Amino acid sequence: MTKYRLAVLASGEGTNLQALIDEVHFPGIANIVLVLSDKEGAGAIGRARTAGITAVPLPPLPGEGRKLYHQRVAGVVQQASSDLVVLAGYMRLLPSEFVAQMPPIINVHPSLLPAFPGLDAPAQALAYGAKISGCTVHLVDQGMDTGPVISQRALPVLPEDTPDSLHNRIKFLEHAALVQAVTAFASGQVEIHYRNIQFKEDNHGNKTGVNQRI
Amino acid sequence: MTKYRLAVLASGEGTNLQALIDEVHFPGIANIVLVLSDKEGAGAIGRARTAGITAVPLPPLPGEGRKLYHQRVAGVVQQASSDLVVLAGYMRLLPSEFVAQMPPIINVHPSLLPAFPGLDAPAQALAYGAKISGCTVHLVDQGMDTGPVISQRALPVLPEDTPDSLHNRIKFLEHAALVQAVTAFASGQVEIHYRNIQFKEDNHGNKTGVNQRI
Repeated sequence: MTKYRLAVLASGEGTNLQALIDEVHFPGIANIVLVLSDKEGAGAIGRARTAGITAVPLPPLPGEGRKLYHQRVAGVVQQASSDLVVLAGYMRLLPSEFVAQMPPIINVHPSLLPAFPGLDAPAQALAYGAKISGCTVHLVDQGMDTGPVISQRALPVLPEDTPDSLHNRIKFLEHAALVQAVTAFASGQVEIHYRNIQFKEDNHGNKTGVNQRI
Repeated sequence: MTKYRLAVLASGEGTNLQALIDEVHFPGIANIVLVLSDKEGAGAIGRARTAGITAVPLPPLPGEGRKLYHQRVAGVVQQASSDLVVLAGYMRLLPSEFVAQMPPIINVHPSLLPAFPGLDAPAQALAYGAKISGCTVHLVDQGMDTGPVISQRALPVLPEDTPDSLHNRIKFLEHAALVQAVTAFASGQVEIHYRNIQFKEDNHGNKTGVNQRI
């Protein structure tokens, strides 16, 4: 059986990518066949190379628009023939043409969507005075953090939290939620009915989709 | 010492009011001095009378506007000299003039705000495909469910949930969160810095404000 193939787009340090390398790629649950970054020196590129995974730094050309740039990205991703595209801290809004021609794309966002979409979600949560926040893994559609929810995990916002301390605690949830979601996709356990997404039980009666771990 | 005085506005069945009667009023943490309902036959009126609490059904007059109606409500509430006004399933948006002339007003909403404000929050959460929801106790300002958050509690949305089953589970969280918040107000343990609201420690080093119980 051909192993499930993942392409990962990343802009940053690559901690979500590292979770996928350690808990999905090396255990053989799925193969990360490509890591692409829009930033030349992204930590994600180094992590991929260290793991022996094809790593492509592909920064936009000067003056290159969002659509043209993503046509180049699409070319590279399509060559990798992936079953799923994972946005692991990828900081660019995807053009709808890109989304339409790709396999399913999932993203992890550091808030309980629809609360605090967009940039700096942990800082938004603190400014609002939220007492509970968390992370959301969702399918990517044409909007900004508007796609159907795959899973969510929650944690308390602490009185002493700063945007950084809150984001750091959320990142642990992100890693677990992303690994769980990718594992569920790779094992064919994801059922999608419009915005209602559920994890099916596996052959042993276990659910991959434990959204209850809050 | 004069006991802390609560006025409760309710439109519905009165289950949040009942929690306050059982866990705040009868234990002597605060006195509910008035229950006012905009509906003649609201369950809340019956519950108040059964508990020996002053109950005022005050339906709007035919054609009476929101502002004029709430001037009458304000008159009744102000006569009761309450320290805090609690909206326990009160289904009308309060005019800003009303909010401005009242003691602090708190509301409990069946979602993790800012997600799913307004009517039918549990149905909104299901339609969105949220995997985690909960309740929010907040200070009331001029907006619809926009005031500073006092506390939030979370629960998982289950695959088999209907709007009713989800709302019923959220109601248990609402009761606990509301009782906790009112207790904290009555014991002077609420610190408000703009949108950042915290519960202080009491003399025994305990926090009333356990938002962490998720």
